[in-house]
Amino acid sequence: MKNKARILIDCGDEKGLVYRISKIFFDQGLNIDSNQEFVDKESGKFFMRTVVSGNFDEAALETDILKVIPAQAHLQVIIPKKKKIVLLVTKESHALGDILIRYSAGELDAEIQAVIGNHKTLEKLVSRFDIPFHHVPAEHINREKHEHNMMQIINSYSFDYLVLAKYMRILTPDFVETFSHKIINIHHSFLPAFIGANPYKQAFERGVKIIGATAHYVTSDLDEGPIIAQNIIPVNHRFNWQDMQKAGRDVEKSVLSRALALVLNDRVFIHGNKTIVF
Amino acid sequence: MKNKARILIDCGDEKGLVYRISKIFFDQGLNIDSNQEFVDKESGKFFMRTVVSGNFDEAALETDILKVIPAQAHLQVIIPKKKKIVLLVTKESHALGDILIRYSAGELDAEIQAVIGNHKTLEKLVSRFDIPFHHVPAEHINREKHEHNMMQIINSYSFDYLVLAKYMRILTPDFVETFSHKIINIHHSFLPAFIGANPYKQAFERGVKIIGATAHYVTSDLDEGPIIAQNIIPVNHRFNWQDMQKAGRDVEKSVLSRALALVLNDRVFIHGNKTIVF
Amino acid sequence: MKNKARILIDCGDEKGLVYRISKIFFDQGLNIDSNQEFVDKESGKFFMRTVVSGNFDEAALETDILKVIPAQAHLQVIIPKKKKIVLLVTKESHALGDILIRYSAGELDAEIQAVIGNHKTLEKLVSRFDIPFHHVPAEHINREKHEHNMMQIINSYSFDYLVLAKYMRILTPDFVETFSHKIINIHHSFLPAFIGANPYKQAFERGVKIIGATAHYVTSDLDEGPIIAQNIIPVNHRFNWQDMQKAGRDVEKSVLSRALALVLNDRVFIHGNKTIVF
Amino acid sequence: MKNKARILIDCGDEKGLVYRISKIFFDQGLNIDSNQEFVDKESGKFFMRTVVSGNFDEAALETDILKVIPAQAHLQVIIPKKKKIVLLVTKESHALGDILIRYSAGELDAEIQAVIGNHKTLEKLVSRFDIPFHHVPAEHINREKHEHNMMQIINSYSFDYLVLAKYMRILTPDFVETFSHKIINIHHSFLPAFIGANPYKQAFERGVKIIGATAHYVTSDLDEGPIIAQNIIPVNHRFNWQDMQKAGRDVEKSVLSRALALVLNDRVFIHGNKTIVF
Repeated sequence: MKNKARILIDCGDEKGLVYRISKIFFDQGLNIDSNQEFVDKESGKFFMRTVVSGNFDEAALETDILKVIPAQAHLQVIIPKKKKIVLLVTKESHALGDILIRYSAGELDAEIQAVIGNHKTLEKLVSRFDIPFHHVPAEHINREKHEHNMMQIINSYSFDYLVLAKYMRILTPDFVETFSHKIINIHHSFLPAFIGANPYKQAFERGVKIIGATAHYVTSDLDEGPIIAQNIIPVNHRFNWQDMQKAGRDVEKSVLSRALALVLNDRVFIHGNKTIVF
Repeated sequence: MKNKARILIDCGDEKGLVYRISKIFFDQGLNIDSNQEFVDKESGKFFMRTVVSGNFDEAALETDILKVIPAQAHLQVIIPKKKKIVLLVTKESHALGDILIRYSAGELDAEIQAVIGNHKTLEKLVSRFDIPFHHVPAEHINREKHEHNMMQIINSYSFDYLVLAKYMRILTPDFVETFSHKIINIHHSFLPAFIGANPYKQAFERGVKIIGATAHYVTSDLDEGPIIAQNIIPVNHRFNWQDMQKAGRDVEKSVLSRALALVLNDRVFIHGNKTIVF
Repeated sequence: MKNKARILIDCGDEKGLVYRISKIFFDQGLNIDSNQEFVDKESGKFFMRTVVSGNFDEAALETDILKVIPAQAHLQVIIPKKKKIVLLVTKESHALGDILIRYSAGELDAEIQAVIGNHKTLEKLVSRFDIPFHHVPAEHINREKHEHNMMQIINSYSFDYLVLAKYMRILTPDFVETFSHKIINIHHSFLPAFIGANPYKQAFERGVKIIGATAHYVTSDLDEGPIIAQNIIPVNHRFNWQDMQKAGRDVEKSVLSRALALVLNDRVFIHGNKTIVF
Repeated sequence: MKNKARILIDCGDEKGLVYRISKIFFDQGLNIDSNQEFVDKESGKFFMRTVVSGNFDEAALETDILKVIPAQAHLQVIIPKKKKIVLLVTKESHALGDILIRYSAGELDAEIQAVIGNHKTLEKLVSRFDIPFHHVPAEHINREKHEHNMMQIINSYSFDYLVLAKYMRILTPDFVETFSHKIINIHHSFLPAFIGANPYKQAFERGVKIIGATAHYVTSDLDEGPIIAQNIIPVNHRFNWQDMQKAGRDVEKSVLSRALALVLNDRVFIHGNKTIVF
């Protein structure tokens, strides 16, 4: 008997869904702590995230709900607990550091299993927090070999999400598909502006007055995955690209941490190349 | 037979509310176009705004819902249509002007009945839009007499909301109570900072780095009514108070127009001195 | 004898520029009301905008400054006065309306000479403000012919800037070059994201969480001109592209009006495809 | 012979200041890397921050400048180097953590001398970064005694600034005056809203739609010192005060770090209870 669950449902919209689902909750004597719904008119899809509390049997609840939603529906009954994550990094410490500080304060809804870096730069920082760091160098080997080496380490951990906290290498489609919908990245531009390498240099050269950051699920199309969160900061002509890079770090880390909190709290539905965020 | 309704319910929270209400919609064959709920844990109150579509009889729908919600519940079944508003102004044109431009483009969900000014300054602007303007001077008479004179004109119109679009006088508690929950004001600060007269001068003297605006329902406590919307803009040491005032106009007008759109679309519940905005 | 001037200088940077220029102001007994400088390290260019007050002869001041700055320098000695603008529009009223309201309040630092529309939609709104409106239809004729017809009208006015207040047609390179650095446009995205047609639809399809607007000088490269101002607003999955378009109007009009104020106050230097904004 | 200096001057405004000062730079063969000025019209004060580079003798430069500025002028010739700071904390780690991460990445323009906490909560975090932590308990003793104990430790360090990184106790006027203009605090509201204890609870009870944070110099008037930086984030009815507190941490830490960077780079002039920030 559990006392809180997050119910996530997505399915084709039809009349009576809310009624039939809320009837289950009522019949089982559960409280609805919060409830959010959305119908995407274009695709005719229904999304619902409900937090219920009370005495319930997880399997029975799931079975009961499955009876009243369409056969093709996707249902998750999730008992809230800290998820497990593995972090991939390169050299910059701001995004990783923000996560480590939250983690050490008990404010991150995740257990960090390990940090993997293609450079050794962040080893010392990670070790300060008594978290395993693995150096998997990418030099002098091809991408497939490097990912193979990472995979050996990744697979030695059980985890829910891989978080790219300024991991500055492109992943192969094979790697991405292995962890479909499980990889979260922070890109240092307000996508779709400045896809690809050195977006701050691109931003500087274009003379923009705002720069931004985008947290998204990684798909095999570079920088094209479903966006979870974005934010921006103003810049002006006094910023050269290094200044933009420096200023951008603050928005990068806050956007990644916000996106991570949303994902870890099961607030994000992936819908094609978009997200529904409750 | 209507085909769209906004159902607004607020009542004490209890188990099964969503189920019982959504059952009515299902039984009457209605679609739920959108649905938002909120339970205020502190007060134990439940708020729900649902837009339904289909063939229904307004009175029957209301009767049916009343049967399944608590006796003390507050229910509104609203068939969407343009609401009627009367505007009160003084001399500044930006907030009024923003509303007039939206109105003339058909983008305001309201019919403007009239504009009442305690100065003649805005008469010409209002007349450009073929809207009645009434000059009710406040000079050399007391507040009660002035409001009495305004009341004569106000009462000659039927309206849903009085909108204070930079009306720079304080209303008496009597006046406010006459139009309880029907008066919307834009205050030129991010309340509760800088209550009262000349907030920009206060802001300048305090040396703040952000200024703001607050749209709120007017209650008999000056600048203490439920807040509907707020926004801010950055300022710096180069701004004297007149510069702040000038810059602030843009945020004032956008905040008022946003709040007005929310109110006109029945998206705002008043809950004590707070609002629930769906 | 004038009593206030804006001095704008851009030239190659060299030692002693500030000293030599400020010496002229001192020798002529002028006050420096405000002064802003910037050296672009990459190009080695120096930009300076100084507002001076006092008794001076405009021509003599110009002559004296020219003696102390490099031969290739670009100098403007501007006596502040309202500039003249001609507006180009299509059907949407928000950007034009915002300008008209500022204009009617005496808050726009410009005299509006005329509004030219390729549709008649905004004729009535413009006429409410006693400003000439010219309908130059673009249908059934080629782009060159349409621009030729517009040019006839444009050339009947003297003006400093052409302002595209949601003019929804692409101008030919010939037209743009005729008015080089004199055309200001508002683009309905945070450039360089969503160049080209229907950026809101593009934004919706990409699933972004922020949308924006960009005011820029028009050059012959579509949406590639120097950016003057940008701003954004958050959106979410509940916004379809029409909702984004509606919400975006508020940021479009405020960004255009802000950019216009900067340009009209001679605060913007064009530097390649970038701007220096003081 | 040094090669870079920040020249900070504030004095009564008078004609020819820029000319006379820039003449010194020119005569000494120095480059002006950047230069910002401001004249506060109300007080008639002139503020200037210039970064010069070249070969110069610090004392001679100072002497020369002093000759051409008013006798009452305040001049600082600062050779850029990392300043020294001591941090005061209580229990929350986010503001401290943000500073520690920047520090460990070499991105903080300061050497952290020590962290002093009135609780032991943050001892472990601080020790992870090999920085001295001093626990100075405040319980069961009066404020003066507690500050006396802190002072013993503080005075054992040489430092430029005391940084209150969520130090949740009020300092006595005596303490504040001892370190006049040397104490920087982060207050968890957009001052002057919600002065004093538990601003998030106050914000929640007022029903605001934005919350913020303010970094300011500490003076003997509680929360009334000169503001350096402020920022805000939107909230809504779904936030209880603990949610606001949690969300507010992100804006607190970013505002404090931004203010600190400004102060450490000598970009902030104190002017009465305001700041000039270049």
